[in-house]
Amino acid sequence: MQKLVLIRHGESIWNQENRFTGWTDVDLSPEGLEQAKRAGQLLAKHGYTFDVGFTSVLKRSIKTMHFVLEELDHLWIPVHKSWRLNERFYGALQGLNKEETIAQYGEEQVHKWRRDPHEHPPAITEQDERFPGHYLRYNDLTYRELPLTENLSETMTRALPFWHESIVPAIRDGKKVVICAHGNSLRALIQYIENLTDEQVTKLDIPTATPWVYELDDRLNSIRHYYLE
Amino acid sequence: MQKLVLIRHGESIWNQENRFTGWTDVDLSPEGLEQAKRAGQLLAKHGYTFDVGFTSVLKRSIKTMHFVLEELDHLWIPVHKSWRLNERFYGALQGLNKEETIAQYGEEQVHKWRRDPHEHPPAITEQDERFPGHYLRYNDLTYRELPLTENLSETMTRALPFWHESIVPAIRDGKKVVICAHGNSLRALIQYIENLTDEQVTKLDIPTATPWVYELDDRLNSIRHYYLE
Repeated sequence: MQKLVLIRHGESIWNQENRFTGWTDVDLSPEGLEQAKRAGQLLAKHGYTFDVGFTSVLKRSIKTMHFVLEELDHLWIPVHKSWRLNERFYGALQGLNKEETIAQYGEEQVHKWRRDPHEHPPAITEQDERFPGHYLRYNDLTYRELPLTENLSETMTRALPFWHESIVPAIRDGKKVVICAHGNSLRALIQYIENLTDEQVTKLDIPTATPWVYELDDRLNSIRHYYLE
Repeated sequence: MQKLVLIRHGESIWNQENRFTGWTDVDLSPEGLEQAKRAGQLLAKHGYTFDVGFTSVLKRSIKTMHFVLEELDHLWIPVHKSWRLNERFYGALQGLNKEETIAQYGEEQVHKWRRDPHEHPPAITEQDERFPGHYLRYNDLTYRELPLTENLSETMTRALPFWHESIVPAIRDGKKVVICAHGNSLRALIQYIENLTDEQVTKLDIPTATPWVYELDDRLNSIRHYYLE
């Protein structure tokens, strides 16, 4: 049996302001930073140790990882960062307040955008300043990999190669793995690990900075899972 | 021409207390943390960008890297950590106050321990709690690689493989590299890059958290070097 720990980043400034964030590189709020430290203290209290960490290229996850590892006295472990663990790319909704968006488009449409795995939020254009092609950190992405919008299903599709190519080999190598990522990239991993239906996964709400533990068998099938408290 | 930036970690709590630190995993002082941020701001002001970072497995360097990268909005770059960039292992001197050590052993002997490249500080034993073999982070080291004491020359010998195998390939691949490390592991790299004599290198004092820039030609020969101000 092997454990795998998933952690959603601590509260960000835009979580606080109730805005769609996506790939916008918003910082942790002061409360989010404290949440990250508490997650680390909780893992330390339960005697967790890790050999390797995986996170996105967005600072709210990277900093959550940093403060979790600091509390564990584990800053020295290798941490791999990949855009494939980024939050869903929310297209033209990025930066908008969720209440205002509901007022403009209606509750039903916004709910669809958020939870229907095949519904695309309005796309941006390549001229939009939010286009990832303008940012250094996405220089290695192919044209096809640069999103203008993403539905949940596409987020899963681009997250899974990192699971298969980087995370699974580490787990099968006997390494204790911690992942700090985002609501929707974690949904992707959880859906795959537990073989959930689209409907099951869209109902899944993942609280910020709360360690979610999997106990996996040799074939990485989930034996048990639980939040650490 | 390619630039390479070396940064010694910010002031640590034991720098402040004037104690021999070595591989003891001492934290940054509050002033050290501010120094790290200022180093990042300075690099940002001069328009520096980086593709990859290298640091030790000691938190004073890892955290310096983190705060430098945060100021540069560069937290997303890959950062590789290796024990080979650790500070010199100071043997039984680790934890001792430098003034008290001088009172006990005499100024001449302490100066030799600090600056003579072939002089070993008193060794610890494997039973000593300071022995790296007791620590998880050194699990991958062979028996021969676990130090009981190190002279400056040995620090250089174990630092250089990481230079050759990890840092040089990144530079030759056209990547912009930043290294956060320690007084003596940086001395090792500087001696090698500039082909300094033992005498020249022991006179080298590297201030904390001050970016040291090399301009290197295609064969990684130093064309110029300077502190960033």
